[in-house]
Amino acid sequence: MTDNDPLPDSDDVMRASKTLENIAHRTPVFTSSTLDRRCQTEVFLKCENLQRVGAFKFRGAYNAVTMLSQSERDKGVITYSSGNHGQAIALTGKLTGVKTVVVVPTDAPVAKRAAATAYGAEIILHERDQMRREDVAAELQHQHGYTLIPPFNHRDVVAGQGTAVAELHQQIDSLDTIVVPCGGGGLLSGSALASRAMAPECRVIGVEPELGDDAVRSFRTGSIQTVSNPQTIADGTRTESLGSITFPIIMDKVDDMVTVTEQAIIDAVAFLLLRTKLLVEPSGALGIAALLSGAVSGSGRTGVLISGGNIDPETVKTVLTTASEH
Amino acid sequence: MTDNDPLPDSDDVMRASKTLENIAHRTPVFTSSTLDRRCQTEVFLKCENLQRVGAFKFRGAYNAVTMLSQSERDKGVITYSSGNHGQAIALTGKLTGVKTVVVVPTDAPVAKRAAATAYGAEIILHERDQMRREDVAAELQHQHGYTLIPPFNHRDVVAGQGTAVAELHQQIDSLDTIVVPCGGGGLLSGSALASRAMAPECRVIGVEPELGDDAVRSFRTGSIQTVSNPQTIADGTRTESLGSITFPIIMDKVDDMVTVTEQAIIDAVAFLLLRTKLLVEPSGALGIAALLSGAVSGSGRTGVLISGGNIDPETVKTVLTTASEH
Repeated sequence: MTDNDPLPDSDDVMRASKTLENIAHRTPVFTSSTLDRRCQTEVFLKCENLQRVGAFKFRGAYNAVTMLSQSERDKGVITYSSGNHGQAIALTGKLTGVKTVVVVPTDAPVAKRAAATAYGAEIILHERDQMRREDVAAELQHQHGYTLIPPFNHRDVVAGQGTAVAELHQQIDSLDTIVVPCGGGGLLSGSALASRAMAPECRVIGVEPELGDDAVRSFRTGSIQTVSNPQTIADGTRTESLGSITFPIIMDKVDDMVTVTEQAIIDAVAFLLLRTKLLVEPSGALGIAALLSGAVSGSGRTGVLISGGNIDPETVKTVLTTASEH
Repeated sequence: MTDNDPLPDSDDVMRASKTLENIAHRTPVFTSSTLDRRCQTEVFLKCENLQRVGAFKFRGAYNAVTMLSQSERDKGVITYSSGNHGQAIALTGKLTGVKTVVVVPTDAPVAKRAAATAYGAEIILHERDQMRREDVAAELQHQHGYTLIPPFNHRDVVAGQGTAVAELHQQIDSLDTIVVPCGGGGLLSGSALASRAMAPECRVIGVEPELGDDAVRSFRTGSIQTVSNPQTIADGTRTESLGSITFPIIMDKVDDMVTVTEQAIIDAVAFLLLRTKLLVEPSGALGIAALLSGAVSGSGRTGVLISGGNIDPETVKTVLTTASEH
């Protein structure tokens, strides 16, 4: 951590909650007796797959942009993301009138690129093997005076992303555990900030795919570990490592981290789809994968953060073909 | 209509609403700006795909069984259904302690049969080409003294099925139109009873697959028309005709009936899945198919009854492969 990376605290999350009032959807919390029976505990699904742009990322993006100064807004913002954060920044730009630029790898799904374009973002394509997307963004930032809003390692992004769990604690009393997916750790660290402040006794557990277990190794060793381009189906968690902001918060406020296999993720997506009738992307199903596979043992009232629902039709078909049971 | 087929009225629906309080789920109403834009009207999805057993059928089955006398309950109930009504009767039996028997064709999906078995129903398999399921049920009824609860042509089934729209009018004010799928007409006639009583100015429109357009022809000609085993993907609407109870109510209280093509149904299921993140079975998507295809023109506040979400994985894959766009 440096002086340029101030850590957010729970007050930042509460402030973000106010900012997002009537802007972000207050997403519903779902329950299902089948889910409870299979997870052997009382489960509350916080459905951020029903959030604007189909993911919690909208909360962080919108909060971060509204925290900028007027002169920063006038120059515009830039981000790099092939997925939900890019769409979230693009929609935020449309809602706030701020120019947005999204750096997207040429091999990103056309549908995701089209969504960002539809919201009016400028799309910059880059060849993944020629240059790091961070470097492309930095160069454009330098040229045009854009402000960079990265996908997770940013105080106001983390604070905004934490508002989903803040809302969950308002909606559901006395949760004993919350289970949260972890990629770069923005959602997990923001959730932990909110949860520690609002429900200090509630356990906070992060879940990562086994194939991209850098955060679990970081948590166990106490220093940031990396993973290189993990081929997990949970594309929202293919980040290289936790960040300078998310890591210390996770070390301080998260109770445990667990991993789940690719099969467990696939089975969780199929289960959520066919039994609860909700379309959840693989990263969004990590919490249910952890409960169904026993990586997290169900006990008491368990809040599960369903982080997003943006999954392309081919992946849905693959999941239905390869799930263990229906 | 005979004396054995007393028509339900709106009081029967209101009574059923009381019966189902805290038993049936009060299903959520979903809105989506993407949906509004595409349908060119303000759309409110009444999500009976999130009902117990995944369909509105639970409301009718439970209501009908609770209206039986103690001696009828002691002997047990029987129904014929390869789908949602069979599961609904089975779950009702489990909840009320009433013995249930479900006559299922041998070619029905194993998953649906398994669900009914799991609730404790006795399953009687019959060969579709050897005997009509109604006759199989009648014979068992005669032998054992069971009471028959048919899938739609029954006063208390219709009244129970109408409670979903009664609830929708409580949840959403000032609807201008409701759009409701039609198979045998239980849901449509019950919905019309509720809607006429609670929101007399609200238009009630029924939707049927073009391939099984018997109800539309019945509505236009004023006499019950039939269709033989229509091969529509909307399996919940493959009924031969409206019934002696549902037909007169529909003639009296429904404003219009429209049809939609198979492609429109497929596109609606894909749209609901990928855009609103809800799994809806083909029959359940008829209302959205009508709006997206222009069969029903959007104007004002439009309530759309999403009747169920029980769709097997192979059909989901087929839908995603054959949908016009994603």
